[in-house]
Amino acid sequence: MKTLQVSLGDRSYPIHIGSGLISKPELFKPYIANKSVFIVSNTTVSPLYSKKLINTISEDAKSVHEVILPDGESYKDWATLQKIFDAMLANGADRKSVIIALGGGVIGDMAGFAAASFMRGIRFIQVPTTLLAQVDSSVGGKTGINHPLGKNMIGAFHQPVAVIADLDTLKTLPPRELSAGLAEVIKHGAIADSSFFHWIEAHTRELTACDLDAMAHAVERSCEIKSAVVAADEKESGIRAILNYGHTFGHAIESGMGYGQWLHGEAVGCGMVMAADLSARLGHIQTHEVERIKKLVAAMALPTCAPPLGNQRFFELMRIDKKSEGGEIRYITLEKIGQAKIEAVDDSIVNQTLSANQAG
Amino acid sequence: MKTLQVSLGDRSYPIHIGSGLISKPELFKPYIANKSVFIVSNTTVSPLYSKKLINTISEDAKSVHEVILPDGESYKDWATLQKIFDAMLANGADRKSVIIALGGGVIGDMAGFAAASFMRGIRFIQVPTTLLAQVDSSVGGKTGINHPLGKNMIGAFHQPVAVIADLDTLKTLPPRELSAGLAEVIKHGAIADSSFFHWIEAHTRELTACDLDAMAHAVERSCEIKSAVVAADEKESGIRAILNYGHTFGHAIESGMGYGQWLHGEAVGCGMVMAADLSARLGHIQTHEVERIKKLVAAMALPTCAPPLGNQRFFELMRIDKKSEGGEIRYITLEKIGQAKIEAVDDSIVNQTLSANQAG
Repeated sequence: MKTLQVSLGDRSYPIHIGSGLISKPELFKPYIANKSVFIVSNTTVSPLYSKKLINTISEDAKSVHEVILPDGESYKDWATLQKIFDAMLANGADRKSVIIALGGGVIGDMAGFAAASFMRGIRFIQVPTTLLAQVDSSVGGKTGINHPLGKNMIGAFHQPVAVIADLDTLKTLPPRELSAGLAEVIKHGAIADSSFFHWIEAHTRELTACDLDAMAHAVERSCEIKSAVVAADEKESGIRAILNYGHTFGHAIESGMGYGQWLHGEAVGCGMVMAADLSARLGHIQTHEVERIKKLVAAMALPTCAPPLGNQRFFELMRIDKKSEGGEIRYITLEKIGQAKIEAVDDSIVNQTLSANQAG
Repeated sequence: MKTLQVSLGDRSYPIHIGSGLISKPELFKPYIANKSVFIVSNTTVSPLYSKKLINTISEDAKSVHEVILPDGESYKDWATLQKIFDAMLANGADRKSVIIALGGGVIGDMAGFAAASFMRGIRFIQVPTTLLAQVDSSVGGKTGINHPLGKNMIGAFHQPVAVIADLDTLKTLPPRELSAGLAEVIKHGAIADSSFFHWIEAHTRELTACDLDAMAHAVERSCEIKSAVVAADEKESGIRAILNYGHTFGHAIESGMGYGQWLHGEAVGCGMVMAADLSARLGHIQTHEVERIKKLVAAMALPTCAPPLGNQRFFELMRIDKKSEGGEIRYITLEKIGQAKIEAVDDSIVNQTLSANQAG
């Protein structure tokens, strides 16, 4: 097991990464001893891991309840969130209660926002069971739900008290979800560490085969990179926005296609190719570097070509993104592989990228 | 105009109290210059003050939109909150947008929670137009909505960037709402300042007649007391709970009767009499002090006798209150008039208070 620390003053917390962690009571005990615990999971993940987790914590917790939500991004809404509050209030939850998010990014975001809002804020633990959640969404305290007009529009910054990433859960992950997680792994290399990017290129076979040694390194290095960025800018007033590399185009794809059609990681994979294309058109990187990124995204079985939403619809969707300010879209581009920047770009150049990267 | 400061580090903010403040552009300009502004108000308050406020800010703001919600505690729910998000997203709100809460406590709580959650947090200004909001709910950063199983169960601590309390708005306040606000004024005296309590006793006629000099003092002293408590314990891990004097019984009445039947301040008025009765049974204060409180509550035309919910129902409702922990109810009692404490109390003693104070 490896333990990293997210340094945020009195909101600092550990990220534990390793095999078999869901079965280690000592990792949970400091947070749940004598507390009423609410496990939030979904219909896919719960049958696989809930029993094990309940066994692990039931001796230390005062009580354990489970809230099982429907699975999928399309349920990341208020009606589903409300089920968490309903279950908590019906079962005597109080301000000392602890939520455990057991699942992927959607569960983590919703359980985290429930923890942020229930009685104005209680503690929660992230137990991410997808690669995407382990390398990205469980770390950094972004929580929230979608609005019909935009992804993650309603939410809070609310840091977990611990992230417990059990690599064994990746073994049950469908290939499509593994690929989606690898998109965010690529992202961390692309924006912050060219040698990590190179390592990913050299290990596409191990990564797509879910080799646990390769996974351990991918998760650790991703969490290190993300933690450092979050520690520098918790609430995204500046540098943290580079973590959204590929997300401006990606969110537009997700939203434009209807949540759940494209997995988040798939949209980000494609979005990174588009953002690389844009970076080249701006003269930051060379065409062969765009190709390197495109090739790596493709090697992870991720789409590299956007759906034909039309340029105008893309702009509409990107303007409503949280990163846009006063209608001006903020793009994350690459200075080079391993270094990102945040900038406004003339629509005419973005139009070229959009035209060159949509299917059909 | 008098200006107080709420001292909360980088979340500190001013409270401006005086006549005609809604017409002073300079009070709003520092926060709204070149921003898209969303005024959140209701069907009662908007016709009275929105036009004036829009005139005041329209030169400095980049754009001004208004969201008019239905009036009343029964609308303090997710469906109504959603109308704020809908309007903001439909009108190009971004992370620099500013919400202005123009109304009473319900508007302030909902607009504040919208500001806390929209894109994970934007700035908001409180323009309280009821006495209750001016002396209590607009200060301190508590925001939220109700859940069918409990009041203010879903919310956030999110401090405003300024509170602008225009005393002129009190002139249009229905007598019942004026009385409801006076309950919180009495509360501030009861928990923290016996000489202020005495001043209130000596000015019941001026206060119930809404004399503006008396109101100015009542609002200023209430805000001073509340600000000091909030500055000492922003997130209510301890001492801040004394501000809930009268609220444990009061919330049970509100919730048990159905939100909107009793005004919040009416329930608190009655709850303070009950909490005083409990304090006497515990030997903290004398019967004549209970009578002083009861007499003062009655002088403000507030109820002093609880509805006949039954003791068991009272306990059920109080156990679900946010102040309760592990099923143990935390009562705010008086050591003496001007000094409160937080304590657990044996059910048998609470039963006596409940039996002695319910009608019928």
